[in-house]
Parts: sequence; C-alpha cells; structure tokens
Amino acid sequence: MKREDLTEKLLDIKRENDWSWKYITESIGGMSPVIITSAILGQMRLPSILAEKAADLFGLTENEKKMLSEVPSRGIPMPPTDPLQYRLFEAIMLNSPALKALIEEEFGDGIMSAIDFTLEMERQPHPRGDRVKLSISGKFLPFLYHGHGEGIPENGLKENQ
Amino acid sequence: MKREDLTEKLLDIKRENDWSWKYITESIGGMSPVIITSAILGQMRLPSILAEKAADLFGLTENEKKMLSEVPSRGIPMPPTDPLQYRLFEAIMLNSPALKALIEEEFGDGIMSAIDFTLEMERQPHPRGDRVKLSISGKFLPFLYHGHGEGIPENGLKENQ
Amino acid sequence: MKREDLTEKLLDIKRENDWSWKYITESIGGMSPVIITSAILGQMRLPSILAEKAADLFGLTENEKKMLSEVPSRGIPMPPTDPLQYRLFEAIMLNSPALKALIEEEFGDGIMSAIDFTLEMERQPHPRGDRVKLSISGKFLPFLYHGHGEGIPENGLKENQ
Amino acid sequence: MKREDLTEKLLDIKRENDWSWKYITESIGGMSPVIITSAILGQMRLPSILAEKAADLFGLTENEKKMLSEVPSRGIPMPPTDPLQYRLFEAIMLNSPALKALIEEEFGDGIMSAIDFTLEMERQPHPRGDRVKLSISGKFLPFLYHGHGEGIPENGLKENQ
Amino acid sequence: MKREDLTEKLLDIKRENDWSWKYITESIGGMSPVIITSAILGQMRLPSILAEKAADLFGLTENEKKMLSEVPSRGIPMPPTDPLQYRLFEAIMLNSPALKALIEEEFGDGIMSAIDFTLEMERQPHPRGDRVKLSISGKFLPFLYHGHGEGIPENGLKENQ
Amino acid sequence: MKREDLTEKLLDIKRENDWSWKYITESIGGMSPVIITSAILGQMRLPSILAEKAADLFGLTENEKKMLSEVPSRGIPMPPTDPLQYRLFEAIMLNSPALKALIEEEFGDGIMSAIDFTLEMERQPHPRGDRVKLSISGKFLPFLYHGHGEGIPENGLKENQ
Amino acid sequence: MKREDLTEKLLDIKRENDWSWKYITESIGGMSPVIITSAILGQMRLPSILAEKAADLFGLTENEKKMLSEVPSRGIPMPPTDPLQYRLFEAIMLNSPALKALIEEEFGDGIMSAIDFTLEMERQPHPRGDRVKLSISGKFLPFLYHGHGEGIPENGLKENQ
Amino acid sequence: MKREDLTEKLLDIKRENDWSWKYITESIGGMSPVIITSAILGQMRLPSILAEKAADLFGLTENEKKMLSEVPSRGIPMPPTDPLQYRLFEAIMLNSPALKALIEEEFGDGIMSAIDFTLEMERQPHPRGDRVKLSISGKFLPFLYHGHGEGIPENGLKENQ
Amino acid sequence: MKREDLTEKLLDIKRENDWSWKYITESIGGMSPVIITSAILGQMRLPSILAEKAADLFGLTENEKKMLSEVPSRGIPMPPTDPLQYRLFEAIMLNSPALKALIEEEFGDGIMSAIDFTLEMERQPHPRGDRVKLSISGKFLPFLYHGHGEGIPENGLKENQ
Amino acid sequence: MKREDLTEKLLDIKRENDWSWKYITESIGGMSPVIITSAILGQMRLPSILAEKAADLFGLTENEKKMLSEVPSRGIPMPPTDPLQYRLFEAIMLNSPALKALIEEEFGDGIMSAIDFTLEMERQPHPRGDRVKLSISGKFLPFLYHGHGEGIPENGLKENQ
Repeated sequence: MKREDLTEKLLDIKRENDWSWKYITESIGGMSPVIITSAILGQMRLPSILAEKAADLFGLTENEKKMLSEVPSRGIPMPPTDPLQYRLFEAIMLNSPALKALIEEEFGDGIMSAIDFTLEMERQPHPRGDRVKLSISGKFLPFLYHGHGEGIPENGLKENQ
Repeated sequence: MKREDLTEKLLDIKRENDWSWKYITESIGGMSPVIITSAILGQMRLPSILAEKAADLFGLTENEKKMLSEVPSRGIPMPPTDPLQYRLFEAIMLNSPALKALIEEEFGDGIMSAIDFTLEMERQPHPRGDRVKLSISGKFLPFLYHGHGEGIPENGLKENQ
Repeated sequence: MKREDLTEKLLDIKRENDWSWKYITESIGGMSPVIITSAILGQMRLPSILAEKAADLFGLTENEKKMLSEVPSRGIPMPPTDPLQYRLFEAIMLNSPALKALIEEEFGDGIMSAIDFTLEMERQPHPRGDRVKLSISGKFLPFLYHGHGEGIPENGLKENQ
Repeated sequence: MKREDLTEKLLDIKRENDWSWKYITESIGGMSPVIITSAILGQMRLPSILAEKAADLFGLTENEKKMLSEVPSRGIPMPPTDPLQYRLFEAIMLNSPALKALIEEEFGDGIMSAIDFTLEMERQPHPRGDRVKLSISGKFLPFLYHGHGEGIPENGLKENQ
Repeated sequence: MKREDLTEKLLDIKRENDWSWKYITESIGGMSPVIITSAILGQMRLPSILAEKAADLFGLTENEKKMLSEVPSRGIPMPPTDPLQYRLFEAIMLNSPALKALIEEEFGDGIMSAIDFTLEMERQPHPRGDRVKLSISGKFLPFLYHGHGEGIPENGLKENQ
Repeated sequence: MKREDLTEKLLDIKRENDWSWKYITESIGGMSPVIITSAILGQMRLPSILAEKAADLFGLTENEKKMLSEVPSRGIPMPPTDPLQYRLFEAIMLNSPALKALIEEEFGDGIMSAIDFTLEMERQPHPRGDRVKLSISGKFLPFLYHGHGEGIPENGLKENQ
Repeated sequence: MKREDLTEKLLDIKRENDWSWKYITESIGGMSPVIITSAILGQMRLPSILAEKAADLFGLTENEKKMLSEVPSRGIPMPPTDPLQYRLFEAIMLNSPALKALIEEEFGDGIMSAIDFTLEMERQPHPRGDRVKLSISGKFLPFLYHGHGEGIPENGLKENQ
Repeated sequence: MKREDLTEKLLDIKRENDWSWKYITESIGGMSPVIITSAILGQMRLPSILAEKAADLFGLTENEKKMLSEVPSRGIPMPPTDPLQYRLFEAIMLNSPALKALIEEEFGDGIMSAIDFTLEMERQPHPRGDRVKLSISGKFLPFLYHGHGEGIPENGLKENQ
Repeated sequence: MKREDLTEKLLDIKRENDWSWKYITESIGGMSPVIITSAILGQMRLPSILAEKAADLFGLTENEKKMLSEVPSRGIPMPPTDPLQYRLFEAIMLNSPALKALIEEEFGDGIMSAIDFTLEMERQPHPRGDRVKLSISGKFLPFLYHGHGEGIPENGLKENQ
Repeated sequence: MKREDLTEKLLDIKRENDWSWKYITESIGGMSPVIITSAILGQMRLPSILAEKAADLFGLTENEKKMLSEVPSRGIPMPPTDPLQYRLFEAIMLNSPALKALIEEEFGDGIMSAIDFTLEMERQPHPRGDRVKLSISGKFLPFLYHGHGEGIPENGLKENQ
C-alpha cells in the first residue's frame, strides 16, 4: 500500500460524501485544521488517537489507519506550478533575503524552526476585498558555536550576535 | 551600473558605520522595515521620497538614488541553500497542499495575492525560547470565469465556489 | 480517481462522438471556450451549473461531475517541447523584459494579474495567410508599499511610481 | 564589446537623462515601442536607419551603433523569477493546452508563428482598476506534410485537418 | 486511451508481422517516410486518408484510427541519451552558432522554419563506408518589425538586414 | 566587498605564511576547528571576540574583521563533484532512508537539528589503515502538533509517536 | 518483480504485525540496525544467511528471498525534500568545505571511504532535550599518484601530503 | 588568455571593418564557411595554415594565432533559447525517433558520425519565399559487436542487422 | 510490450534458476560478456543468431526474441546515484580534461569512438587487494575539415594537427 | 589567487613556448602523464617535489608553486558537451549497468575505487585506423557489513557475495 493511494482513497470518500475540510478537521479535531488537512494529504501524520477518529470517519481498514499515523516522506517539487501554491513561494522568495537580515539582527545567528512551528490561516474581512491571513510562529534556534576545550561552556560560546 | 553593485556599496557603508537595519529602516521610514530592507537588498524599490532619504543617509550620487527607486529584476534561485531561508521555503512547501485546500474551501477558486500583500516580522517572547512571528496578509483574488456572450455578467460567472 | 484519468475519459468520449471543441464548449456554454477547454483538460474547474451540463453531455457519474468542479492542481512543466506551445512561451520570453519596462512605466510597480485575467483566441483573416489573434487582458495590481506607523495610509504609500 | 555592456550603458544614459521609454521609443520611432524597447534591452536588433537615430539620441560610437543593429543572441532563462514576468509565463502555461486544442481545431495542424508576430501593450481603463491589454497576432503556419513521389503536390498533402 | 499505448500496440504489430518501416511507409504512402514513421511513433499525425490506410494495415479500431490523425503532444526530453539521437543533437549544437551567423548574413534577421520544413534521409554510397545523408529545407521567416503609425507599411519595416 | 573575496584573501595569507589549519584554528581558538575553518571558508561567522583574534592573526582591516563576524549566505550546490565532498553526501544519501526510519522509531516524529548541532573530525588509528571519525550530535526536535481549541495543551498534543 | 514492490510488501507486513524496526533488526541480527533497515528499504543487500532469516520472519517466497540478497541499484534524488533527511544533507553541505580542508591536512590527499564505512545512530540523553548521535567511521583512502617508469614505486609516489 | 576573449576580439574587428562572414571565410579559405565561422566563434580550430591566414587578416599576435589552431572546449547549453538555434534543435528533436528507426533499418545498429561529418548551408530560391537548405552527410558507424574467443572475427560479429 | 518489462522478465528467470551472468553469457556466447549482459539489461541488442540462443535459454516467445534483437533506446540518467556506477563516472569526469589534452596531442583533433569500441572487465589479482581492470579501446576518429572548392581533397584538409 | 587563473597562466606559458604535454610531463616526471596533465589543468595536485620541478619549468612564484601542490576542488559539470569528453561519458553510461552486474558477480558487493586507481592512455596502431587504448585499474573495495554485537568479526560479516 502506498501513501498516495491512501490519499486518493480519502479524497474519493470526501467527494462522495460532500464533506468539507471544515467538517473533516472538526470531526477529527484536537489539532489545527492545517495539520489535519496536511495529514490527509500525506504531508503529516495523525497521532494515533486522531488516526482512530479518522478511521471511524472514513471507514478505514486497520492497516490504513496505521499508515495514517506513520510519518510520511514529506515534500513536493519546488517551486510548484499551481498558482495558489506558487504565490506562497514567491512571497517567501522575494522577502527571504530581508527576513534573513532582520531575524539575524534581532535574534543573532540562527533560524526560525520549521518544526517547532505553527501556521494558521484565517479569513480577514476587508472592505476592498477579504484577505487571507497567515499567522506563522517558529521557535528561534541559535546556531551552536561549540568548542572542545575546558574553557568552553557546555552550550557553546555565549555571544552569538 | 548594476543593481548588485549598488547593493554591495550600501552594505559596505552599513558595515563601516556600524548601522543596524533598525537604524536604517527608521531613518528612511514610511514603510515596513521588511520592504525597506528588501529595497536595500535589491528585491524592492523605494518610492522617490524615501529614495531621497536613503540617498541622504548613504551619501549616494544622483544616479544611485534614481536606481534605488527603479523597479529591480526580482527573485533568487529556488530553493536557497542558506538554512534560515531554506526553513521558510520548507515550511511553505509542506503546508502548501493543505493551504490550497483550505483557502479554496474558504474563498473559492483563486489565490492569495503576493502583490497586494503585507508581511511583518516580530519577536514573540516565550518562556521556552523566543519565537519568530510572521504575520502575512494577502488579498484573495478569485479566478475570473469570463465569458463572451450576452448573458454573461461583465465580471464573469458569479458562482466561483 | 485521478484528474488525469478523468481527462483521458473525456477525450475518449469526445473522440468516439466526433465532437469538436466548438460543440463541447457551446453545449456547456456560459464561459469562454478557452476556460471550458482548460477545464476539460484539467487546468481549470467548471462552476457547478456548468459541471452539471458537462455531466449530461458526457454522461458522467456523480463523482466525476464533482471532480470537474473541484479546483485542479494546475500547471505543466516549463518550457513545453510541443512546438505550438513552445512558440507561445518563446514569444513571451523574448518580449517579457520589454513588457516589464513598459508596464512599469505606464502603471508603476506591480504586475498584470494572471487571475483577474481574460484570454480569447480568434481567427484573423489575412490575404497572406490567416493569423491567430490572442486578446489578453489582466488587471494591473500595484505592489503594496505597506507601513505600520500612524502617518501611513491604510493602503500603503500613495506614490508607487 | 559585449551586448550586455551596451545594454547597461544605454540604461545608464536613460537614467542620467530621466528619459522615459516613451520618449526613447518615440525619438527612435518607426516600429512598435515593444520592439524598440526589446532592442535596447538586447532581445531585438534595430534596422540601420533606426540604429542611426538611436546612436544620435544616446551619443553612441560607430561600433556601438553597429552592434545595436546586429542580431543578438536572444532569450532569458525560463521561467523567470520576477513576478511581472512570471505572471506572463503562468498565464501562458495554464492556457497553452487549451490553446493548442482550439488553434488546431480552427486552423489544422500547425503553430502560431512567434516570428511573423506582433505584440502590443495598452492601458485599458476600467472602473474597478485599469487593465493591461496585450494584443497578439501571429501568422498561422501549417505543418508541411511533404512527400517525394509524383502524385504529391509540391506544397505537401492538402488536407491538413 | 493514451497515445503511447497506441504507439506500443503499433510496434507490437510491426514486430509480429516482421514488417519493415519501408513496408509500412510504402503501404500507407502519400508522404515522406520520415513523417509517416514519426506519426507511428507519436510525433506527427496522419491526415485522415492516410490514417484510413494505416488502420487497414494494422487492423485498428475506429477510435485508434481517429487518434492517429489527431495532433499529438510532440517532443522528447533534450538532449536524449541514445547515441544515434545524441549525435544529431551534437552536430546541431556545435554548428548552431555558425549557422545563426551565416543564415542571418544571407537572409537577414529571422529563422529557418521547423514547420514549413522537409527532412529526407538517404543512403549515400561511399568507397570508405556509406554515409547517412540528411537533406533539410526550411522556409526562411523574417522577424516582423511592426509599427503602428501611419508611415509604417502593413508588413513592417522593409529593411530587415 | 564580497565574502568570497575575503575568503580568497585569507587563503592567500594562509598560503604565504605556510600556516596549517591547526595553527589557524588554535590561534583563534574558543570553538571547534570545524566551525572556525567553516568561518574562514565563508560558511559560518566568527563571534566578535574571535573575529578580533582572526583580524590580528591575518592583519585584517576593520571592515574585513566586521565581515568575518557577519552571518554569511551559507551553502554550496548539491551534490558537489569533489570526491571527498561527494563521499560525505553519498554516505548520507544511502543511509538517510534508514536513519529516517530509525530516528522516528526512537524519538517520534521530528528531526535531528542541523543548528543545535556539533560535528567533530578525528583520526582513528587502525592497523589496516587509519580512519576518519566523524562524531555528530544534533538535538532532536519533535514536530509540533499544535491545536487551537481549549483542550489543547499550549505546546501541542503530547503523544507524538 | 521490482525491488520497490518487494520493499512495499515488506513494509505492509511490518505494519500488519506492528513490528518495530528494533524487532526486525534484532530478529535478523548479525549486522548493524542501520544496514539491515537499509536493506529492507532497498538501499543495501542482506548476506544470504541473513536473507534466510528475513525470509523466515516475513514469510517470503524463494525468489523474494534471493532478491533481498541481490545488490540493489542504490540512491535517492538529491537533495531530498523530507525535513529529517534534508537536515542530514544540510549539515554535511555546510561543513563539507571545512571537512575537506581538515581531512586533507590531517591525512593528505584522498577521501573518507563511503564503502569501508560504518554509521551508528544512538539516543544521547541530555537535560535540555535528548540528542541524536551519529558515529561515522570511514577508512581514509589516499589518491594513488601512479607512474610508469622504473624509478616509481609500485604503489605510487610516497609523499602524498 | 581565454578563448571567449579571443572570440570577442575577432567579432570587434569584424564589426569595425564591416566585414561579412563571406569575406572572412573566403579570405581564410580552404574549408567550408561553416567550419571557418565555427572556428572564429570558438567551436572549431583552424589548421595552422589557415590560422596563419586568419592572423594576417585580423592582425593577431603570435599567441592568438596559436590559440586559434588549438582545439577548443566545444559546446553550448542545450537547448538554446535563441529562436534561430532553437528551431534547429526542435526539428531534430521531433524527427530523431523516426530517424533512429529509419537509419537503423537501412544501415543496421550504429550511428551517423558527428565527426566524419559535413554540413553545408545554401539559399534555396522559392516562389513562395526562399528557403534555407542544409545538406548533412555523416559516415555511418556500426556498433562493434566484439568478442574474445577464437571463433570471433577480429572486427566483431558480421551480422549487425 | 516494453523493453523494460522484457528486462524484468529476464532477470526473474535468471533469479529463479540461480544462473550467473557467466553462465548466461557463455550459453549465448559469440560476443563479449559486457555486450551480452548489456543486451539483457536493455542497453544493447543481440544479433539474431544470439537472440535465438537467448530465446532457447530463457524460453522466450517469438516476439520477445525479436525484441531482444531490436536496437533499444539506450542510456540512463547522468550521473547515476549507485556508488559502483558513480565511481566509473567520477573517474572519467576527473580525468577527461587531461585525456582531451593528451589524445588531441597524440592524434590530432577528433574523438575516441564510443561505437567502434571495446570494453573488457577482468579481475586483476593483487597482494594488497584484487583490482578491477577495464581495458578500453576505441578507434580514433579525426574531425573532418571539409571544403567545397576544387582545390580541396575529397576527404578534407590533410593537416589535422 | 584562484586556481583557474593559475591554470590559465600555465596554458599561456605552454602556448608561448610551444611546449607539448609530452615535454611538460616528462620534464616534471615521476608520475603518469595523465596525473601531471590533470594537475596542470586543476583536477589533481602535484606532490611538492614535482611542484618544485613544475615551478622551475614554468617560472612560477613561490605562492603559485604552493598552490600547485594544494588539493584542488575537483570536478566538472556532468555530462560535458565537448564531443571528446562526451564520448568517454557515453561509453561509461551505456556499459555501467552491465559493469555493475559483472563486477558484483565477480567480486561481491562493492565498488571499483576511483581513488586507488590508475588510468593510462596509449596509441594502439591498427591497420584500419589507430585506436585510443585506455587501461584502467581500480582496487575493488567491498561494502563493509558491520555489526556491533560480540559475534560479529571486527571487519564485518565475511560472506559478502
């Protein structure tokens, strides 16, 4: 059984039942709709209690349920050609040099984690046309400046800015 | 004169004067620090009143000032190898299939604009380690379902969901 | 069920019945032939009232009808090798630097939308050989120069040229 | 002397003199602004009478003038990352399968020439935001179905639909 | 039904019957062997009278016959790894800069059409080893230098050299 | 001033003085030789107290010293063609599917950080030929399964295995 | 029978039986868990005595057992998009220039073998979060500086530093 | 001295003197204009007696003359974006599967040499527009089916069809 | 029937019967083991007398036998990721600039044929570890310097060094 | 100083003095001409005693001499477009699947080293045209099947076939 076949089966069931993502993510619950949707689409896993709920909802076999809670092989080819997805990449591409400069100035040398990370999508009403609001929050992780002499503190050199 | 040579000159001046991005973006002012930093790095332009301020700050020639307010050829190779920049791409890559599903369910067929678009970065204090917060807002733009008969409303078919 | 299998099925039915695109797009109606053809080929969706008509015409199942009105994952590899398609890309490739210069001079910093966008194809009779006429119209979208101080107007800095 | 150095020089002169593309293309005249701008940017050549005018306007040397009327090595990497240019590619990418279907149905097997080709850009006023209008016209060229027997007409088999 | 499946079926029938390409192309007739072979291999279409003959020869269904006369999606990945095909690409690659220079000097700015185009292959006997002779002929198409003022002739500026 | 020019200058000085990396990394001290060497080669930064030492050692200008402690744009094209570097990539490539399986089984869904990360290289004497020993240690970072309802703990769902 | 189908079958059996990799690698035994897992995933082979054990455990046919001990065609596309795997590549990418410099200084011109190579993964408990420890050891292989005269020692020139 | 700098110098001299390729190739003489032009453009070498003539014509230094008769590193990126060059590639791309089939049927397993190869370009007058005629002739080289037993003829197995 | 399916079938039969390549290549005989193995793997063809023997050995159908003696579409993606195959590419990659220099000095401008070419693999016993010996021999083919005047010898200009 | 600038300088000196590679490699001596030529071309290093000789021959500065004995960053883009180099890649590409099969059958799981490796080029006189003979010899390196229990021999599991 391949993960993409399971994804296709889940989408078939969703279509047959005229279920919305809202209905699916609320029925499974317990996590952000973005993560649950990602799990259905094969980019995330469901913790076993949620995989149980998903299996009930979709009427999955035991093995399909287990697969839903296995960690998938994540990722898609970059950049995608779909316009909605491309715009997200483009917005990041154009702003990533500035974000690198500003994050490093504010936090020192390191990254915004893409693992200890949340992403929420909301509709933002606006008189000239509603907007898509994405709220992203990732833990800042400083590069570890490690040494191996005595004078080096366990967590590396303090000054990282 | 090439835009990348101007960028290099601006970074040399920044380094010599020990200026922070905060100092530069506040001195120029009038727009978000992300945009101003992007303009210095050659991904955005400065409106002429801000280019004037930038020219005063950096001591630019007339032609350099003009170049700063010209629209640059935007973009960088995708995906970038720098870890800070790669994490931003990865976070979008993994979540873009789910975002496509959820935005289309909420708004109908269309995209989040990357042009009528704002992006802000903030430090989010947190007991277990401060976080990088990115607030993104882009206007939703529906795909235009245009026709060319009489019965077709000028702005295309209403139903776009 | 995959979208490309549906596309293949639709083309099989078209072939069996000796239907022309003209017949199909007129039978479904309500939108430009380019969009309807794109929908049959898996690059656009049909609004549900048109998907209904398409389902009647092609004799589709309920689920196939629903899939036709779902937003597909759009795009093809660039550049395509097919000569007809390559010529379209080439014409854009050679002229895109000039179009960037002229559109920015005329409209300021921004883009021609590919979403709020129409494209029509017509035969243009000509004594030395008929011509293909493409009429393209996309809304100009200015880059938003947003700020976050008090003095900044809600829609960003006015001057965008 | 390389063509890109000449392009850079021409853009420097344009900047110093605050010339618009409108001014430049009208001063040189005789052809569409899109072609003249393309020639300045190194994607087209200027016929010698126009190269003469361009040389007068920009104060070029004899050799620079000659280079302007030489055929350049055309093209840019596909797809470009600049948003304005990318949108043009995207619009073509999404619609090219449908255009292939519709052009072949209307004209038979062949292509729209990208050589015997015109492209004009205009501002299209619109109450909800002005639009960019591109008018494209390319000669239809039928694939030649050639033979080598006696019964084969010199220009190939008639029926090409 | 996919075009590559039809191609595979045709090659299976050719193999079973020990048919040569010579036999196939002469049986179908009416066009150059190169085009007919290309059509069997999915890179060209057969005009309907020839598709009829091919259908008789191969014993095709009505739908397979129709597919043979539909325009395929042409092209293969470049460059191919097969030595025979690679040599053709290499010969063109090495000589294309010189051909560009010589064709433009002889004909002016334009291209050799790959559509109004013939290609024949012949065996050329030679005492030191027979040779493959390729005779290629493509119509020269001049770039159209179009204008939009009154003084501009309809077909663009005369001088194109 | 570009970072690669600084790297080249540092390597020129190293060569002129017949300095070993051991001498350089011990003279600068305070961190692992791998990081210091990476900083000299433009893949890491030196904290300012170490940049000071490096500036003394290499006789750098004030601006060069500052650049050494700026965060560089990290990364090289993947995979590299140099055999020593390629072997490192190959070893990771072949084992990365197994490491994914084993790390996820041991730690749950997440990654080994490449930021909170140490890497040491040692010579491992061996009777049949000395060996290169690489000791790598990266903090395990669990994927955050965040929610946004009341019942969801702030740090996401507990069970992540 | 294709190796990827065997891999898929093995993963199906693992899932059905709720086997852990620990259970599988201990049941087969005799080699490092990393290698055995790699063999199950199609990147390594099992020696025949271990393939025998694997066949017993998984209930394989004679032919499947043989395939498990055949050398597979190794490798995956680089770089992978899965975050866990990407981090491994990134860590190597950033440090590979420094490792090249340090290994060559320590050992002379040559490589760390990726064939005479071991890799172990362990959990490293840590008060601020457990860590993934990778211990890598590869034989150093000096480039052979071979000659073909009399004075050249059979194994090449001694001095290789 | 780099070959591309020499090419640029030769083109500068050609431009200054208003020399045509016809004039240059006839002045140097002794070989086909395609080869001589290729040599000037850095894709072929000139035999020393022709390099001598070229040096006289262009007024080259001794070293430049020698470089002209050195074998260059041949080739350009494939496929090129220039329309004239792309058309040549496209014509080959579309026809290469058929040419492979027909050449192998006529000659057996092997290739058309791109080394023992001639290519000539001529203007072909035509009432409906002159044509570019390319005459290509390459020696057929059969794949060598070599053996190493006694019964095997030195030049491999006879039957190669 | 596709060539890769035939290859898979042949490997299945080889596995079931525990045949070695030595057994297969000796049973078929008449050519080098490298070529016969390549033919089984779909990179070469078998002459019909050998295809006959292969058909007897493997119990093939008439059509499978014919396919084995058809010329396949040769090649694999470059560079391969399998370590054994990559090393062969790497060895060539590193040495190809030197081989170009030395072959051209020894033979003049031309290539080592990859068609009139033999390759043998042998085990080379060695006290410090047996070695793989590859003996390669390819006919030198000089570039043809052709002309088209009277004074030009038919086979081009003599001097090709 | 960059290695490619040193390479260019060495080639300039070679050209000025009309030195052959034979003269250069014999003057430096001590190693195979292939390695010495590779070192001059920047793909290998010269041991210091040979770098000394090269420095005398070419009249290099102290720093240039040191650079010649530093390990370069090896490799070129794959596959190269130069015909001589491409043929070497093609010959390997077509035969690498068979070589993998035959080497693994003869030696077990492992590789032919590209480091403990020799390559010699010779002219092979032949009545029908001289041939290029390449003699390659690389040490076979078996994959290490390591374990970490008691019963596992230090060098891994014996049976590797």
